[in-house]
Amino acid sequence: MSEVDLKRRILTEVQEELTAIEAAIEANLTPHADLAREIAGHLLFAGGKRLRPLLMVLGSRLCGYQGGYDVTFSTIFEYIHAATLLHDDVIDGGTLRRGRPTAHRIWEPPAVVLTGDFLLARALSIAARAGRLRILEVVAGVTEEMAQGEILQLQRKGHLDLTRDEYLRIIRCKTAVLFEGACRVSALLADAPAGAEEALSRYGHHLGLAFQMADDLLDYTEDSTALGKVPGADLREGKLTLPVIQALARASEADRQKMVEIITRADFSTETFKGLVSLLHRYDGIEDTRRQAAMEVSQAKAALGFFPDSRVRGILMDIADFTLSRTS
Amino acid sequence: MSEVDLKRRILTEVQEELTAIEAAIEANLTPHADLAREIAGHLLFAGGKRLRPLLMVLGSRLCGYQGGYDVTFSTIFEYIHAATLLHDDVIDGGTLRRGRPTAHRIWEPPAVVLTGDFLLARALSIAARAGRLRILEVVAGVTEEMAQGEILQLQRKGHLDLTRDEYLRIIRCKTAVLFEGACRVSALLADAPAGAEEALSRYGHHLGLAFQMADDLLDYTEDSTALGKVPGADLREGKLTLPVIQALARASEADRQKMVEIITRADFSTETFKGLVSLLHRYDGIEDTRRQAAMEVSQAKAALGFFPDSRVRGILMDIADFTLSRTS
Repeated sequence: MSEVDLKRRILTEVQEELTAIEAAIEANLTPHADLAREIAGHLLFAGGKRLRPLLMVLGSRLCGYQGGYDVTFSTIFEYIHAATLLHDDVIDGGTLRRGRPTAHRIWEPPAVVLTGDFLLARALSIAARAGRLRILEVVAGVTEEMAQGEILQLQRKGHLDLTRDEYLRIIRCKTAVLFEGACRVSALLADAPAGAEEALSRYGHHLGLAFQMADDLLDYTEDSTALGKVPGADLREGKLTLPVIQALARASEADRQKMVEIITRADFSTETFKGLVSLLHRYDGIEDTRRQAAMEVSQAKAALGFFPDSRVRGILMDIADFTLSRTS
Repeated sequence: MSEVDLKRRILTEVQEELTAIEAAIEANLTPHADLAREIAGHLLFAGGKRLRPLLMVLGSRLCGYQGGYDVTFSTIFEYIHAATLLHDDVIDGGTLRRGRPTAHRIWEPPAVVLTGDFLLARALSIAARAGRLRILEVVAGVTEEMAQGEILQLQRKGHLDLTRDEYLRIIRCKTAVLFEGACRVSALLADAPAGAEEALSRYGHHLGLAFQMADDLLDYTEDSTALGKVPGADLREGKLTLPVIQALARASEADRQKMVEIITRADFSTETFKGLVSLLHRYDGIEDTRRQAAMEVSQAKAALGFFPDSRVRGILMDIADFTLSRTS
C-alpha cells in the first residue's frame, strides 16, 4: 500500500481517538502562568502526529481497557515529548520545527527552558493522578533515561568516530524509551497480564528505533521544504546518524576525506549536500539504514503476535508499516 | 544566641545526619553519563547547606520514623533544588554561585540545562522507589508549582510595579513549596497522622518564606564577597525583592525617581548601590522585610507546637531562628 493510502487508512481508523486526544492535550494544559501555556501551545498545536498518546490509547484498548482514563493519561507522553523538543531546540539552536519558527526565536530562551520544565512536571502530576505506583515508576524512569540520552548525544556531537552502537544507544534513550514507556503504561493501565505488558513494550521499543532511523533517513531522502526543516539539519548541528556512520565506515580513504570535509563544515551549500548524499548512496549508507529500520518494524509487528487478531491490532500493525513507508 | 553560636549548636546536633546525607547525595548520583555527574557535582559539592534534605530527615524522626530510607529519600530535595539552580543560573546569566563560577561558565549552557533535566528525573526516580503513591504526588506537585513560579518570576522580571502579593506568590512557588514538600514527605514517610503532616507542612511553608525573605535581604545587608555573589546581584538581574518593593511604595516622588534610575541601570557602581541601600533603610524597606521574615519564623515555630518537646523539635526550632539570625 502506498504511503498516502496507508496514512489515510490509519487516520480514518483512529479519527475518534485523535479528536479525543487533541481535546485532552488542550484541556490538561492548565498552567497558572499564561506564558507557559502560550509557549507550550505554539509547539503543541503545530500539527504534531500525536503518535505517542495514540500508541498508549490503542495499547490500552488492545488489552481490553474499558475505563475512561486512557485519553487523559495519554497526554503525558505528548507533554514529555514536547518538553524534550523545546529543550532540544534551545540546545541545538534549531530554527524550524513543524514548519514554524522554533519557540526560542519568538520568546526568550529562558522562558522556553522553563516551559519545558513545566511540561515535564505537568506530565508527572497527571501520571500521579492515575493512582498506580508502577505507572509512575515507568514514567519517572523514562524521563531519566531520556535526559541521559540527550546528554550522551550532546557529548558525542561533532565526533566523527561515533559508532553504530553509540548511535543505537542514543536513539534508544531519546526516542525508543518513550515509545516503549507509552506502550508499557497502556498495558499497566489496563491491568494486563505480564505477557501482554512485555509484548506491547517490545512493540514500542522496536517501533521507536524504526521511527528514529526513518526520521534520520528523511534528512537525506526527502525534500527538506516538505519536512519543514533546513536541508541537512542534523549534519549542520553536528549530529551523525546511521546513514553517515555506515557510509563513513565503508568509504575509500579519498571519499571518506571528502565526506569529512563536508560534515565538518556546517555551512555547506545545497549542491555540496547533494554530493554528500550521493556518497551515502554509493556506500550503501542509506539503503542499509532503511533495511535496519525494516528489521525493527518486523520485530515490532512480531511482538504483536502475542495478541489475537483484532481491529486495534491491525491499526498498530499499520502504524509500524507507516513508519517505514515515510522513507521510501 | 549569636548567629555563630546558633550555627555551631545546630551543626553539632545534626553532624551525623549531615554526614549520611552527604554520602547519599554522592551515592545516588549515578548517571550513566559522566558529564552529567561532573556538572551536577560541581554545584552539588560546592558546600550547599543541605537544608532541604536535613528538614526531611529531621521531620521523619520527629514523627518517630525508624526505617532506613529517610536519608536516601532526602536527596530528592537536594537534587530538585540543584536542578532549579542550574536552570536558574543559565536563565539569569548568573556568574557566581556558592563562591564558584556558575556551571554554564565552565560547560556549554545546553549541557547544564540537560543536567538539570537529569537531576529532576533522578529525583523522581528515587521518589518512585519509596513505593508510596502519595509521596510521588507531592513531589510531582512541587516540581509543577516550582516551574510555574519560575515562569512568573521571569515574566515579571524588570517590572517596577511588582506588588508585594506577587512577590509572595513567587517566593512561595520558588522556595516555600519545596521546603513544605520536604516536610510533608517526611511525615508521609513516617506514616504520621494527618495532624502531624499538616503541622510539619506549615512549618516548612513558613520557614521557606522566611528563608527566602532573609536571602533576599542579604543582597542589601551583607558584604557581598562573604556571600560569594556580586553586590546587588538580584537588582542587576532585574529581580525586585521585598526591601525594594516596600521602599518604592513608600518613597517620596523624588526619592522614588532616584531609586528607579538606579534599579533600571544594571551596571551601577558600588557607590551608587550604597546610595540605594541607604534609601531602602530610610523607607523602612529593610527593617520591614526583617520584621515580616521574623513573623514567618514565629509561625513556623508555632506549628511545631503540635509536637511534644524533644531533641529533634529543638533542632527544628533552632533552624527557624538561624534563618533569621543570618540577616541581623
